[in-house]
Amino acid sequence: MYFPELSERFKQLLAELRGRRVAVLGHLRPDGDCIGSQVALTRVLCSQGIDAIAVNRDDPPRVIQPFVGDTPWALAKDFTPEGYVTMNVDCADPIRVGMLLEGMFPETLANIDHHVSNPSYGRHNFVAPATSATAEVLAGMFFDLGLPVDAVTAQALYVGIATDTGQFRFPTTTGQVFELCARLCACGASPAEVARELFEQEPLAKLKLLRRYLGSLRLYHSGRICIGVLREQDFQETGAEHEDAEGFVDYARDLDGVDIGMLVQEFENQVKGSLRAKTRAYRLDQLAQEFGGGGHAPAAGFNQHRPLEEVCELLLRAAEVHLEKMDRERGTVGA
Amino acid sequence: MYFPELSERFKQLLAELRGRRVAVLGHLRPDGDCIGSQVALTRVLCSQGIDAIAVNRDDPPRVIQPFVGDTPWALAKDFTPEGYVTMNVDCADPIRVGMLLEGMFPETLANIDHHVSNPSYGRHNFVAPATSATAEVLAGMFFDLGLPVDAVTAQALYVGIATDTGQFRFPTTTGQVFELCARLCACGASPAEVARELFEQEPLAKLKLLRRYLGSLRLYHSGRICIGVLREQDFQETGAEHEDAEGFVDYARDLDGVDIGMLVQEFENQVKGSLRAKTRAYRLDQLAQEFGGGGHAPAAGFNQHRPLEEVCELLLRAAEVHLEKMDRERGTVGA
Repeated sequence: MYFPELSERFKQLLAELRGRRVAVLGHLRPDGDCIGSQVALTRVLCSQGIDAIAVNRDDPPRVIQPFVGDTPWALAKDFTPEGYVTMNVDCADPIRVGMLLEGMFPETLANIDHHVSNPSYGRHNFVAPATSATAEVLAGMFFDLGLPVDAVTAQALYVGIATDTGQFRFPTTTGQVFELCARLCACGASPAEVARELFEQEPLAKLKLLRRYLGSLRLYHSGRICIGVLREQDFQETGAEHEDAEGFVDYARDLDGVDIGMLVQEFENQVKGSLRAKTRAYRLDQLAQEFGGGGHAPAAGFNQHRPLEEVCELLLRAAEVHLEKMDRERGTVGA
Repeated sequence: MYFPELSERFKQLLAELRGRRVAVLGHLRPDGDCIGSQVALTRVLCSQGIDAIAVNRDDPPRVIQPFVGDTPWALAKDFTPEGYVTMNVDCADPIRVGMLLEGMFPETLANIDHHVSNPSYGRHNFVAPATSATAEVLAGMFFDLGLPVDAVTAQALYVGIATDTGQFRFPTTTGQVFELCARLCACGASPAEVARELFEQEPLAKLKLLRRYLGSLRLYHSGRICIGVLREQDFQETGAEHEDAEGFVDYARDLDGVDIGMLVQEFENQVKGSLRAKTRAYRLDQLAQEFGGGGHAPAAGFNQHRPLEEVCELLLRAAEVHLEKMDRERGTVGA
């Protein structure tokens, strides 16, 4: 058993839900783990005689769309909530589903997640903060209970794990993660197909945007903080989409000597900050909270309504103070 | 059993070698799979009462060096071959060990590899062309035979698999690969530590070099061929090392619509070509052979003594002809 306690409760919940209608909700601007988890849970619920549908405020990203397959799916604006109960996946907070869906469903029946900040807001909570992805929690429970994992489900769960581990790089990548991936492959997941969709159909505009981001990188605080920016103009002049910048922040974080990498970009009349640290010790969820955001300890983000220059300046100052505070708490000077 | 037939023969070989001296040879300009396999095999041989040492013409790359640990190791120029027999790992051809080592050891006792072009040139051959990495073959045999896999060995084998699968992206990434990685984690491999060494200590000069490579990318043949170049001057002006360009060619290959991506670079008074295809069907090993090189079907390379411009022109022409030939053989037009 991967998750004995969670799986036992999940089994009871499935029995309760038989014959009912369930909306499986994901978060705003969904990522691979969100969509993968929604696809997998929706399909497994359907296989158990539960009338399930995945519902999102936003469309899946271009590269994740192919993994939805024939899974029942609706956009929030087209969805009629009457008669449905909800299960949220990968949402650390109920407001993450967006105002429209939050208004439709003031109560969350089940809350399945792996974010450490999740306050267990559902009536039933399946929160495993030590895991790599919500998809890992679902895969583990499905295998624990012998639930049917078809090829689309296996592929979707694999996408969730592969993306949320940074392609098996993050410290959450354990032996259990590989074991589950081996079982997902046996159920029909294809790592090469996933890689083809995720990494091998890159628009030329994305590489042009990457050149600009790389050119914008600046080091601060003895090279321990690296910030790069993308302006609306960078997107317009290269023809790149905002989702093309996904993952760029890793170039800043991955530099030798850098502890915290950042991407600050203009996005839909706001300024979006993405923060990445080399270790969990830097608690970027706390730094992001100072800017009204949140996330994981090594990966967090926020949105602000100030001009980009101002955000960068405030962020740099806050990051320097935060870094020194974390150093003191760890009892170290420097990395 | 992962490799029942190979493992049975490997067991017999180990018994024959007890008390003898073995040089474990790798190829020129070794990569993660070469070094990882040398480290792992050398350690396991030592654990079986065999006096083993890894020997290379070239030093391990900077990012791979940390995984050698306390494994017995020598450079070819400092090595005295008397009394040693050899086992080659990850060498598709005996000349891949370099002239000096080839001269010292005209006979290869054992040949352990995963390259499809390996002609089984050893007295004992352990060649499994369908596998992801030489490290996969070794890991499978070690587990099959219950040989002791210590933490350094596990980590080294994990490095071999992670690098030779392109971090679990290539079509060779099977359920068995993940199963072996789960077992390597149980023996002490740490994916996050490996990622830290491989990806999170990037020199700033490398990103500068990457900007230049991205800026040099040009599309040909209706966007199906993408070539980027790096001149000696690019390395000098950015301060980057030649090994920093490792993996850049994937940016060319990964573009939407591109079937073959290439990197042509000036290197030690030669011109080095790196070729990558999205599928095995394009048989780049054959294209590389036209330029005196070789490799795998989706990933091959060569060295030439002509000027860079001339190589690019010849290569583009040859690639166009090759692509059309492959299309005809597959019975398709276009990708």
